[in-house]
Amino acid sequence: MQLLKDKIRAEGRYLGKGILKVDSFMNHQIDPKLMKAIGEEFAERFKDTGATRILTAETSGIAPALAFAMAMNLPVVFARKHQPVTMAKNPFKESAESHTHGNMVELIVSPEYLMPTDRVIIIDDFLASARTIKALVKLVNTSGATLVGVGAVIEKAFEGGRAALGDLGVKVESLAAIINFDDEKINFG
Amino acid sequence: MQLLKDKIRAEGRYLGKGILKVDSFMNHQIDPKLMKAIGEEFAERFKDTGATRILTAETSGIAPALAFAMAMNLPVVFARKHQPVTMAKNPFKESAESHTHGNMVELIVSPEYLMPTDRVIIIDDFLASARTIKALVKLVNTSGATLVGVGAVIEKAFEGGRAALGDLGVKVESLAAIINFDDEKINFG
Repeated sequence: MQLLKDKIRAEGRYLGKGILKVDSFMNHQIDPKLMKAIGEEFAERFKDTGATRILTAETSGIAPALAFAMAMNLPVVFARKHQPVTMAKNPFKESAESHTHGNMVELIVSPEYLMPTDRVIIIDDFLASARTIKALVKLVNTSGATLVGVGAVIEKAFEGGRAALGDLGVKVESLAAIINFDDEKINFG
Repeated sequence: MQLLKDKIRAEGRYLGKGILKVDSFMNHQIDPKLMKAIGEEFAERFKDTGATRILTAETSGIAPALAFAMAMNLPVVFARKHQPVTMAKNPFKESAESHTHGNMVELIVSPEYLMPTDRVIIIDDFLASARTIKALVKLVNTSGATLVGVGAVIEKAFEGGRAALGDLGVKVESLAAIINFDDEKINFG
């Protein structure tokens, strides 16, 4: 997605150790025009999946997943890290190591919003080590729903997340794939 | 906002002790059509404020704030609860007691995205005790930016948040104000 790559080149900053700062438009501040375009791009790529629901995780997945949900007119569910008092009893739970913070986080989804009849697309901001996305896949499997697609805004291809996901039998789409940061530059695949 | 009140009546569930479950469309699952309409309603109410930036807090503020940002074509910043490695040094920090979880949470914003020249509208999902919104107001004041509006999707008027905010000198708008849950019913003002 050229618009996204241009934005990453213009505002993204490589901080070393594989860390990319994109908080001016994606995970602290959000650029609404770009996010809308991201949602529309996902909608184009997943239009033939017969999806009924979109699943993402707190926090940074919410913006791209909502933009996608608006473009598809589908409900979006974000897995919670803490179980709120308003959540139904006996929710689905999975653990995943946080990429940014290093600690283990829980991902919790109410069975009310992930059902065996659902066809689910998982969306997240990054596909890096794929730990969060793998936990979301497990939640889908536990619920009995059918996974029909996985989408990430930015892929760090050098972290091997795509391979770590294994053969899911569904399209795995990223909108900008970074192959390396050689010469301190952001190099796309 | 009639559409929102109808949705709350149809899907909201009063759980006792002032707690309203709206996780089918707002803070676990999100209804994209309703959220778009919420954003447009905020845009109509705040169109004359000359706002330059929207500020909200993780997690449940992100969806309405992004929908509003899309309608206004303004950048939206969400205060983080934990400081990511990608955040600039010496961010603005405030503490607030979590309404849902009871514990203290930090709200952290990078000075890169809240500047003295900004005119800021604060958006959150609920105006209840106003603790989160008060912390966001302090962040705006600390940054030197000018607060020009406060918007909440649902107001629990009986929790006194509006009074607790004091005289901010700006419009405080909620899209559905609940005055009480008498007779276990959701009663709007």
